[in-house]
Amino acid sequence: MPLRSDWSDRPCPIARSLDHLGDPWLLLIVREILTGNHRFDGLKSALKISDTVLTRRLADAVDAGLIDRVPYGGSGNRFEYSLTRAGEDILPVLHALAAWGNKHLAPPQPGQVLTVECTRCGTVSTLADWCAVCRQRLTVDSTAWRKASAPAVLVPLAPLRG
Amino acid sequence: MPLRSDWSDRPCPIARSLDHLGDPWLLLIVREILTGNHRFDGLKSALKISDTVLTRRLADAVDAGLIDRVPYGGSGNRFEYSLTRAGEDILPVLHALAAWGNKHLAPPQPGQVLTVECTRCGTVSTLADWCAVCRQRLTVDSTAWRKASAPAVLVPLAPLRG
Repeated sequence: MPLRSDWSDRPCPIARSLDHLGDPWLLLIVREILTGNHRFDGLKSALKISDTVLTRRLADAVDAGLIDRVPYGGSGNRFEYSLTRAGEDILPVLHALAAWGNKHLAPPQPGQVLTVECTRCGTVSTLADWCAVCRQRLTVDSTAWRKASAPAVLVPLAPLRG
Repeated sequence: MPLRSDWSDRPCPIARSLDHLGDPWLLLIVREILTGNHRFDGLKSALKISDTVLTRRLADAVDAGLIDRVPYGGSGNRFEYSLTRAGEDILPVLHALAAWGNKHLAPPQPGQVLTVECTRCGTVSTLADWCAVCRQRLTVDSTAWRKASAPAVLVPLAPLRG
């Protein structure tokens, strides 16, 4: 999925990852799917994204093995999107971005932060991929978010699985 | 620094961070500065980036408070670039991208991975921002890299400071 340049043949894994993950829309689509927003219309509404851009980004992410597309409703032309294991493993990138934004950018309204909680112990973590209390990785199976837009709701991630 | 869309007014800190960090070139410039590549010509050579794009990205990063521009050589028209504290705090984003690439993307040559070491204890960490042995954060002051292109060399980060 080349963007402005093709970094797929670089030795550095940061550059090669950016070939897939260096697109803001892709990361925001992954954010939405993680919190249960699995369908085209829901993604379009939440992201304020055009049909054309969303269709292209979803197709690219399916081709890249980040997202699975599964029919629903029996008609054969409606789909739900879920994350593959490679897609789920994008979580620390989102957490690192959230922690940077929480620390360095003033929110539109006071207190609008993304809070990451370990579902094993309930501890809030500001680390990207580690619960320092459990001493275990934060994965989609052990993480819940309080979104900046709805901090009262604890959203367990990856609700399509399990 | 709006890219394809302006996410600066979104409640979600992931979206707001992407307004600054959602550009692959910016992240690769930060990667280079972290490993001691501080000057325009060095950045241009390492990144295979055009003068126009590099000039623009550096100016945007200075405006965004991520990079400092400091004159050197006495002529007044040559500059070195270093990271601000906000720029240094991008490190976990790079580590998360590196870990994802190390895990999910085949390198051009076998064994080409970015290895992250804690300089306090010498332990290799695959976490984005935590040394599980020291139980402390991995920051630019406590992290060294073995780059995929030169794994024999341990590169301490942020050599301009201190």
